[in-house]
Amino acid sequence: MTSHAVAAQSLTPAAIQAAYGLIKPHVHRTPLLTCQTLDTIASTPQSPEALVGTPFEGQTPAHPQFRLFFKCENLQRIGAFKVRGAFHALLRLLEERGEDEVKQRGVITHSSGNHAQALALAASTLHVPAYIVMPRISTSSKIAGTRSYGAEVIFSGSTSVEREAVVAEVQEKTNAILVPPYDHFNIICGQGTTALELEAQYAERVESKTLDAVITPVGGGGLNAGVATYFSDKPQTRVFGAEPSFEGADDCRRGLQAGQRVEAVTTLTIADGLRTPVGLLNWEVISNKEKVEGVFAVSEEQIKAAMRLVLERMKVVVEPSAVVGLAVCLFDEDFRRRVEQDGGEKGWDVAVVFSGGNTTVEAIGKLFG
Amino acid sequence: MTSHAVAAQSLTPAAIQAAYGLIKPHVHRTPLLTCQTLDTIASTPQSPEALVGTPFEGQTPAHPQFRLFFKCENLQRIGAFKVRGAFHALLRLLEERGEDEVKQRGVITHSSGNHAQALALAASTLHVPAYIVMPRISTSSKIAGTRSYGAEVIFSGSTSVEREAVVAEVQEKTNAILVPPYDHFNIICGQGTTALELEAQYAERVESKTLDAVITPVGGGGLNAGVATYFSDKPQTRVFGAEPSFEGADDCRRGLQAGQRVEAVTTLTIADGLRTPVGLLNWEVISNKEKVEGVFAVSEEQIKAAMRLVLERMKVVVEPSAVVGLAVCLFDEDFRRRVEQDGGEKGWDVAVVFSGGNTTVEAIGKLFG
Repeated sequence: MTSHAVAAQSLTPAAIQAAYGLIKPHVHRTPLLTCQTLDTIASTPQSPEALVGTPFEGQTPAHPQFRLFFKCENLQRIGAFKVRGAFHALLRLLEERGEDEVKQRGVITHSSGNHAQALALAASTLHVPAYIVMPRISTSSKIAGTRSYGAEVIFSGSTSVEREAVVAEVQEKTNAILVPPYDHFNIICGQGTTALELEAQYAERVESKTLDAVITPVGGGGLNAGVATYFSDKPQTRVFGAEPSFEGADDCRRGLQAGQRVEAVTTLTIADGLRTPVGLLNWEVISNKEKVEGVFAVSEEQIKAAMRLVLERMKVVVEPSAVVGLAVCLFDEDFRRRVEQDGGEKGWDVAVVFSGGNTTVEAIGKLFG
Repeated sequence: MTSHAVAAQSLTPAAIQAAYGLIKPHVHRTPLLTCQTLDTIASTPQSPEALVGTPFEGQTPAHPQFRLFFKCENLQRIGAFKVRGAFHALLRLLEERGEDEVKQRGVITHSSGNHAQALALAASTLHVPAYIVMPRISTSSKIAGTRSYGAEVIFSGSTSVEREAVVAEVQEKTNAILVPPYDHFNIICGQGTTALELEAQYAERVESKTLDAVITPVGGGGLNAGVATYFSDKPQTRVFGAEPSFEGADDCRRGLQAGQRVEAVTTLTIADGLRTPVGLLNWEVISNKEKVEGVFAVSEEQIKAAMRLVLERMKVVVEPSAVVGLAVCLFDEDFRRRVEQDGGEKGWDVAVVFSGGNTTVEAIGKLFG
């Protein structure tokens, strides 16, 4: 058994509960929203024309019934679920190594996006120095956001080799402790608290029924693995993953088909939070059929269509990565057939995790201008 | 005394309460949101450079303290507060003229925007035929939206003379009853229910303090007049209005300065819901200093800056018209000085009404692309 397989065995619902106890004072209990219009659209069969040019061309469109529940981590602190993992990892570090050591050494990570801001916020809140290695080409708002939490930003090239070299350099000088963005036990447990909250919020709303499914984006896989861990002893609630398909960004889906993790991905999908391959520990969870039933992939156009619906109809701002789960519900005929066949007339109650909302009006303009 | 002055006397808080009793089953109790980031920005003095080229150039920037409470009518049904007035007006019509007459004649209005969809929804809900006269140049999503509620759309030219001619034509054929968009007792009472809700929501949140002020957009003036009516017996809560200044769109502010209502406006401000002059009955309310303390105007750039902050920081979608009140809080030095001087260190708790969220990703792209 590999060390990752061993670590995966400790990923239990109880570990998520424990993480929640620690991070609760530091994170928002983000709302679980519904939207009649989106339910109606998702519960209407696609037109046969809409399937032309997709893998489902020529099929009779499925007719599933959806009631969608959107877990709005786009309204989370720093605009993404990543604060959950960052606070959890840092609180555990302080517990395990003691305040003196952690505050003296500081923490370091490399990220161009939401994890950078999340760790910067957690570190400033807990009075720990933070060093964030960001690619020189990061958008200025993300750099400014990270700095505004008091973190020291150090620039690097864009490839993971270049980033890691700069991390090693800074670590040599500072002895800072690495907090990885997704492939880490404490990060996964933190992200999994999303599931705990949404299950409780669903139960407050809908009595005498169990949630049928949860679908989350899969980038590095921390969120999906955390959510799957939380629901691993509740087989009535199936967990699914969603990825972009552009330029092979669907590494997890392809890995599952091949029975082997895909180790590297080079994609410029608009879902920029999902350009990374699934981490090793996350793969242990996600490739376990009893934990994650399936991973689906959607096209750039489908991501844009889902994003448009959320902005224009729900009136909430999401980043492209956030809506891949919704895009699966709306457009993937395999998934829709599954819901039709299993859910029947009652349909499925599906929680869709909106992972983040960090975009800009210029970026929206570029996508749709 | 003019007939409008007489009608204005019947605009009382009790009339708003009565309206709420009628429309409550048909409207959302939209959330009252807060945003720490926006509070911080609003409570930070502008830089002297930011005042260059504005009427406040050379002044020492004010240092007010704001706690902002956003009444999110962008999350209302059809995406705007307009459903409140439309349902109220139609329910009163049914009460006063009887179901038979109203269902036989139907209702008619002219609007290129939110009132059209609001009346269409109210009419389809209450099983009354609706005829909506829309300018031929209306955006296709608004036309489709109006039709999707079952209303019959009739096209006209864009000027008010052209629109009214088409209304008269359709009325001759159908005998449909006109439901005006803003300058009408029952419309004002409906819009005023926004104030009743936000006051209750504020009280649930903040104990042992009274709301210091409410600021709403002023286009035709129905929303502002309704809100001012509701707070007219609560002098501790001041009511303010906000307008765009572009191409004279600040007709209400200019009218107040001149002591006379401005009757016509021709402006293409990006705040397209605020291109109309204030109605006669609304003017009676808004020009009463005891009801509305002042109306402020903001530039197109200030509207865009406020809109960007709401989309990027609060992650909710608003249309340009919705944020003129926030723009006043952020940028108008006269208003900010007032809050500084009156509120002192405690500052002011200000409710900002976001009037609507009906925009498209393309429109956002055009504004910021």
